[in-house]
Amino acid sequence: MPSMRKVIMALGISLDGCIARPDGTFDFLFMPKDYFEGDFAAFLASIDVAVMGRKTYDVSRAMGGDSFGGKIASYVFSRTLPTGSHDGATFVKSTPRAFIGKLRRQKGKNIWLMGGGELGRAFLKADLVDELHIGVVPTLLGQGIPLFPPGFPQREFALIENQTFSKGLMVLKYKRARGKSKKKN
Amino acid sequence: MPSMRKVIMALGISLDGCIARPDGTFDFLFMPKDYFEGDFAAFLASIDVAVMGRKTYDVSRAMGGDSFGGKIASYVFSRTLPTGSHDGATFVKSTPRAFIGKLRRQKGKNIWLMGGGELGRAFLKADLVDELHIGVVPTLLGQGIPLFPPGFPQREFALIENQTFSKGLMVLKYKRARGKSKKKN
Repeated sequence: MPSMRKVIMALGISLDGCIARPDGTFDFLFMPKDYFEGDFAAFLASIDVAVMGRKTYDVSRAMGGDSFGGKIASYVFSRTLPTGSHDGATFVKSTPRAFIGKLRRQKGKNIWLMGGGELGRAFLKADLVDELHIGVVPTLLGQGIPLFPPGFPQREFALIENQTFSKGLMVLKYKRARGKSKKKN
Repeated sequence: MPSMRKVIMALGISLDGCIARPDGTFDFLFMPKDYFEGDFAAFLASIDVAVMGRKTYDVSRAMGGDSFGGKIASYVFSRTLPTGSHDGATFVKSTPRAFIGKLRRQKGKNIWLMGGGELGRAFLKADLVDELHIGVVPTLLGQGIPLFPPGFPQREFALIENQTFSKGLMVLKYKRARGKSKKKN
């Protein structure tokens, strides 16, 4: 049996846990060359689907983001936009569970959950996140959009890897420890 | 000239950046022996003052916290309790800047800013935090009291150290990079 396609929530954050400034921009994030050409390139080669919320899609388009040379299929969760393929992505309205279930019945690489916070929370609620890869830059933003907005059940993880790159970028990788619930109540 | 007493904000947090559950308890935090007997013991030996907000003091007392065998003087910022020494601590009403200025005119070791989030924010607003030591446990809490509640100016830091201990505890240490402001606007 082939190994299941993993859902990997991978994002960069400020030291105070924000994925963006209050207006959605993320100029404070950076990818030093040693990370971009090494670990990040390996990560991109390990996935073939990127999933994001509509706000992340908008900001990413406004900031000139492309679809990684067409090698990665982008899916956007939106309650308001028409479903189907248009504007460089496939728009979906299904639940995260139904969507991931469908992808997992197809052969493929791992699935990149790009965010943002609201879609991440929906995936965490449905317990669909298999790994977390978090890049932490050494800036306290003071205000911004949190990676983990409150409102999902406690989830235990296990540390896989902890690496430091240039300019103080740290990349932390965790995997979901589903057998290890220490939930209170 | 002796080196200035540093203010070190040192706390444990969940992977989603919380210092406590919504009710103030922090049963999810842990200190494995390799950290407690090594790095944490060295940290305790490097400080002689602990500073905290009134809520942190209350929770710490309720959970049976002592004053580290009397070797560390505890100061509690409170707007409502009478100032002066009582109940195992010295209660103060001054501003963080005036309080730290006074401590720095006295000889001594470094100063531990124990939290919580509100006092930390006041110290960050006044740019009084010289180092951050953050212990991260591999649990997403889903809701809780944030280490960094929003409402302070952007502050740049530089990574000093990044260590992994048992059970996936990571300890990240940063120092304030005051010459390196990349503030937007």
